[in-house]
Amino acid sequence: MSVVRKELEIAYKRVNPFIHRTPVLRSQAIDEMAECSVFFKCENFQKTGSFKMRGATNAILNLSDEQRQKGVITHSSGNFAQAISLAAKIQGVKAYIIMPNNASEIKKDAVEDYGGIITLSDADINSREQVTRTLQERTHANFLHPSNQLDVILGQSTATIEFMEQNPELDFILTPVGGGGLIAGTALAAHHFSNNCKVIGGEPTQADDAYRSLKIGTIQKNKEANTIADGLRTHLGDVNFPIIKEHVLKIIRVDENEIVQAMKIIWNRLKIVIEPSSAVPFAALLKEKENFKGDQVGIILSGGNVDLGQLPF
Amino acid sequence: MSVVRKELEIAYKRVNPFIHRTPVLRSQAIDEMAECSVFFKCENFQKTGSFKMRGATNAILNLSDEQRQKGVITHSSGNFAQAISLAAKIQGVKAYIIMPNNASEIKKDAVEDYGGIITLSDADINSREQVTRTLQERTHANFLHPSNQLDVILGQSTATIEFMEQNPELDFILTPVGGGGLIAGTALAAHHFSNNCKVIGGEPTQADDAYRSLKIGTIQKNKEANTIADGLRTHLGDVNFPIIKEHVLKIIRVDENEIVQAMKIIWNRLKIVIEPSSAVPFAALLKEKENFKGDQVGIILSGGNVDLGQLPF
Repeated sequence: MSVVRKELEIAYKRVNPFIHRTPVLRSQAIDEMAECSVFFKCENFQKTGSFKMRGATNAILNLSDEQRQKGVITHSSGNFAQAISLAAKIQGVKAYIIMPNNASEIKKDAVEDYGGIITLSDADINSREQVTRTLQERTHANFLHPSNQLDVILGQSTATIEFMEQNPELDFILTPVGGGGLIAGTALAAHHFSNNCKVIGGEPTQADDAYRSLKIGTIQKNKEANTIADGLRTHLGDVNFPIIKEHVLKIIRVDENEIVQAMKIIWNRLKIVIEPSSAVPFAALLKEKENFKGDQVGIILSGGNVDLGQLPF
Repeated sequence: MSVVRKELEIAYKRVNPFIHRTPVLRSQAIDEMAECSVFFKCENFQKTGSFKMRGATNAILNLSDEQRQKGVITHSSGNFAQAISLAAKIQGVKAYIIMPNNASEIKKDAVEDYGGIITLSDADINSREQVTRTLQERTHANFLHPSNQLDVILGQSTATIEFMEQNPELDFILTPVGGGGLIAGTALAAHHFSNNCKVIGGEPTQADDAYRSLKIGTIQKNKEANTIADGLRTHLGDVNFPIIKEHVLKIIRVDENEIVQAMKIIWNRLKIVIEPSSAVPFAALLKEKENFKGDQVGIILSGGNVDLGQLPF
């Protein structure tokens, strides 16, 4: 699929009034450690605490009047659930969220606080899809996918369009890779708005479906996905994979202890709260720092939703 | 002692090139919770992770050429030690830091990383003062006090001069009260640069020397000071107390659980790392929120240096 610059510009203008323009932070100590100039794009400061607010907002703004009246529906226990809930509320649209019955109270409370209407399913995929289907048939709500839908991907691209305005000289942007929506949007924005800035993914070795998918050329899935980076346990989809194949330079895999170390450095040095998934691209940079010497490297910190009672330090 | 506006302006211009202009953060959820508009001045993002960098820088820039050659000396196991170390290094001045031999490795490492020359004393005050005196006699280094010295206080005032530029409409500024340097500087800046913005201190009930000092009219000391807000265990001094008496509206005392709750709200909602002392003025605002309804309230987040292995959550 070919996505033209105009489509990204439309998404950027459309979501702009409803999201935060997030700051870019730096640290001298981190630059010395990484031997390059590192720019952190703080989507942990985005509304609902993650970049997902961008894609959710763009997808909802893209609905027709008739569709809006039916509401939106998604299944997620994580950041997309919160983002859809708030983005829908801001636009005056109903949001139905299917969550597994083992989701934490913190996550359920957050969705309800943002106005989402929760329906619980069993924790397995079959139940989740069955419950979603039944509710969708009853409500005719529009299903929104967290990562494998073009208007969601275009929404995610707006973080990088902003980032390029804040620093047009970036040589690289590194993002985490989970379902593929963020890195696909980032790659499209870098392709259309930068002067040859390359996009690289960071991925947990424990959930390296994207790494293997790019090697083999077809979408591979994770078996265990036993990683602390809980936002990255999902796999790529047929909409984002072609974009990733065309525009992403490579995927760097990192181990669990490297993720925790990178997370700790960011907390200690930048004094900000990020979730483990956000630390993955910085861990990837540190792992292969000989390839970035002296470069200007952007890192998208994807989110900051952690349970403070469950930190890995 | 009367401090005129010109002195604050000089300090502001002097430190400006050597410190960060820290951002002001907000949160809609926090505004709803506090029933007023809350503006957080993020000195946790300041160099060395606390506002102390401002006072340290101003005091060092105030030295004569002859004094600079002798270096500076202080006793501190906390943020002032790190601030003096880096501020001195930036100005090409030697910094001798007396630390108790039970100070954590993390704190000693931080001081050494910033270039401070550590001398250990026993943990009691007598040993600390003896070691300081001996080293001072040998080196003729200039003693800098963390809070009870006018050029340090003038340096701390620059956070509020900046804050007033960022939001000239503040009705109140709340700061933590420890040794008194920050609140004295804040009160001077509010007096000279604001349109009747009032300054209030937040203090742990467990170390309420400033509260009692203002009630009684003379400097009172803490007996136990058994508070998680470890930056606030010290007491006021003869330089800052007259300023506080003249320009601070009142002190609000908060309990330990209120400090931890306030800290947790800031971490969760603003997605930033602050130390317990920084949470004290926000806890004070929540405690007496009926007195701030609809107002514009500034909070100075004094620092972000925490041991991630020792969090109270």
